[in-house]
Amino acid sequence: MTSDPHRTNNTLRISEIVAIPVACPDPPLLNHHGVHEPVFLRVIVRIRTEDGLEGLGEGPGGRLYVQQLMAAAKHVIGADPYHIEALRVLIGNPRLFSTIEVALLDLIGKATNRSVTDLLGGAARRRVPFSAYLFFKEAGDDDWGRALTPEEIVNQGARFANNYGMSVFKLKGGVLEPDAEIRTIQLLRERFGRRAKLRIDPNAAWSVETSIRVAEHLRGTDIEYLEDPTDGIEGMAQVARRTPIPLSTNMCVTEFQHIPVAFRERAVQVVLGDHHGWGGLTALRNLGVVCKTLNLGLSQHSNSHLGISFAAMIHAGAAIPNLLHASDTHYPWNAASDMVKETDRFRFRDGAIELWEAPGLGVSIDEDRLASAAEAYDQRGSLLARDDISAMRERNPDWLPHMPKW
Amino acid sequence: MTSDPHRTNNTLRISEIVAIPVACPDPPLLNHHGVHEPVFLRVIVRIRTEDGLEGLGEGPGGRLYVQQLMAAAKHVIGADPYHIEALRVLIGNPRLFSTIEVALLDLIGKATNRSVTDLLGGAARRRVPFSAYLFFKEAGDDDWGRALTPEEIVNQGARFANNYGMSVFKLKGGVLEPDAEIRTIQLLRERFGRRAKLRIDPNAAWSVETSIRVAEHLRGTDIEYLEDPTDGIEGMAQVARRTPIPLSTNMCVTEFQHIPVAFRERAVQVVLGDHHGWGGLTALRNLGVVCKTLNLGLSQHSNSHLGISFAAMIHAGAAIPNLLHASDTHYPWNAASDMVKETDRFRFRDGAIELWEAPGLGVSIDEDRLASAAEAYDQRGSLLARDDISAMRERNPDWLPHMPKW
Repeated sequence: MTSDPHRTNNTLRISEIVAIPVACPDPPLLNHHGVHEPVFLRVIVRIRTEDGLEGLGEGPGGRLYVQQLMAAAKHVIGADPYHIEALRVLIGNPRLFSTIEVALLDLIGKATNRSVTDLLGGAARRRVPFSAYLFFKEAGDDDWGRALTPEEIVNQGARFANNYGMSVFKLKGGVLEPDAEIRTIQLLRERFGRRAKLRIDPNAAWSVETSIRVAEHLRGTDIEYLEDPTDGIEGMAQVARRTPIPLSTNMCVTEFQHIPVAFRERAVQVVLGDHHGWGGLTALRNLGVVCKTLNLGLSQHSNSHLGISFAAMIHAGAAIPNLLHASDTHYPWNAASDMVKETDRFRFRDGAIELWEAPGLGVSIDEDRLASAAEAYDQRGSLLARDDISAMRERNPDWLPHMPKW
Repeated sequence: MTSDPHRTNNTLRISEIVAIPVACPDPPLLNHHGVHEPVFLRVIVRIRTEDGLEGLGEGPGGRLYVQQLMAAAKHVIGADPYHIEALRVLIGNPRLFSTIEVALLDLIGKATNRSVTDLLGGAARRRVPFSAYLFFKEAGDDDWGRALTPEEIVNQGARFANNYGMSVFKLKGGVLEPDAEIRTIQLLRERFGRRAKLRIDPNAAWSVETSIRVAEHLRGTDIEYLEDPTDGIEGMAQVARRTPIPLSTNMCVTEFQHIPVAFRERAVQVVLGDHHGWGGLTALRNLGVVCKTLNLGLSQHSNSHLGISFAAMIHAGAAIPNLLHASDTHYPWNAASDMVKETDRFRFRDGAIELWEAPGLGVSIDEDRLASAAEAYDQRGSLLARDDISAMRERNPDWLPHMPKW
């Protein structure tokens, strides 16, 4: 009970960390850097305490990452999960720490019977909205079908609208010629009406000049923001001076150190944070504080992920007050691979996930599904890390992802 | 036990908030705005949950503040102490919220058997250093004696060094002519040697021109920082362009909204945060994140306070990694009035307080001492709020605290 002075909460001690690399099927989604490989790699982390609690984390996978993670484990074993800031500096690399930190918060939540949202300061909202992440794609083995034209993207958008109630559409651009992508955005506006929100992200495939030209063409289409039209803080600043459309980024501002210069140069209006890259959910909360202070907008960036990361993103979306833009997620593309038991918690209504009441992240593992995803990884043991470029060059040996390309 | 699914942690609910205004003796300390009145006012807040836990807070006192606090209580009764960000926006005023927030953290700490330091991310350091806060002062009823000359300030500094082991000295300036205060700093350097750190804070009593002249005179004396030499972000920016001595402030940057302009203008190098003013310990932690991101220094500002606030400042000092400057505190001036039982925890060694292991803030109330401080307040029921100016004008009706004065 809460008033029992003998309970052992205050001596939570980590005794074990297990990292399970997994490989899951991925549709052939196209982007400026190439095409998604047939499988995507993640790692599931289970951190256990002496008294039998388990915290779950999920991070980018691949052999190199898992090796680094196990090297970092020496700082984690014997540690107290509350000592987050100490572990952050001991581990150093925010991309490694993030996977561990999510598991620490899950542990603390389970030890105190509190949701991760509560550990981050409590819910600012109970419905967390997500965008429909539209991709040009090859036909593939999935049931999404081909999307290589503007019209096919609109059909893909309709599936997101119908199945998930989404009304914020993000197009992964930088694949077709800029004019075809402008046309795609205009068709999305026509199809989904005035109230839909539209974003396009060419992953810096455009020059400053092309970015300004695209922005000019899209002014009448009412764009929520233009994501990384061009490369680097200086390039983004040059574009920002020439268009009223807000610019967002997950490429030129990817760590706290990038913020002062981006702010001075007025290069970016919306930062797309990602707990995986910034150093965990507490780091994303901290990014929220910085963005609020500097009057910058905030949204969440996504890479291919599974349900533990999705739960983490939902808690971040619920807890961070100024996260006013719908978050991006790949979850609808990868949900079939998920090894979380409570996938019913991830049912979209009107494009949002409703927060649920449960300790920690509020998800647990289906051991059979985890085992088969781990087996799939073992069968492709040579995979080092995600490589969209090579996957594309297998199709076209001359293909190069220049930035800018147009 | 931690794994007991039936414990009621997750239904912590606040059932009562009690605010006890107190008045405590204060020495006649001088500053640019006048002189400390014979008593200083604080309020002790006790927030209780349905299952009998009590969290303690302390804030600025006086009738107006206590009335505002009780008006804010309607948001607190029935609330869950974890829902900090919701209560922050419901209460709105960060000076009111801060007093409540400290009590919420104390409650959460007691419910989970964790220190407030752990709730803020864990200890970055276990010894929290404080500065010797030197004041020009009248003789008064206290045993500190008179300090109206540079030489008498040096004697006061020696008492801080001998009794508390302090080696960081902050002079509250703006009282004597600037040349006499320059002389005071130089005497402190002579007396305490090269390793002492020296600060001076004239509370914006100087013009830009005088500030630059003082900075020039003090360059050879190695000043840690010059605090609020002149008024406003623009004035500070003008001074900052003309001296390599870092400028600090608790006057022109007192809320998050002030930071972007101060940063663009390069007006300030060190922000003196104060959980009382910024919105609690979580806000001070957030300020730490912003300062780290923008490469600004961070220290803690102090007003007259008692032991609950001192405990809060110690936890902040332990938990915030980039709080690298010794924090200011009035505690040595007011320790005799304290109603905290565990005052032995506040024993300075080498100018620092050692963190202790206890849930929450780690302090509790001596009811007899609280009752007599509350009685002292009731006997002076007409006191609205601190008023150093009127206290000075009782001595000299022509006295005016112009900014700038010199």
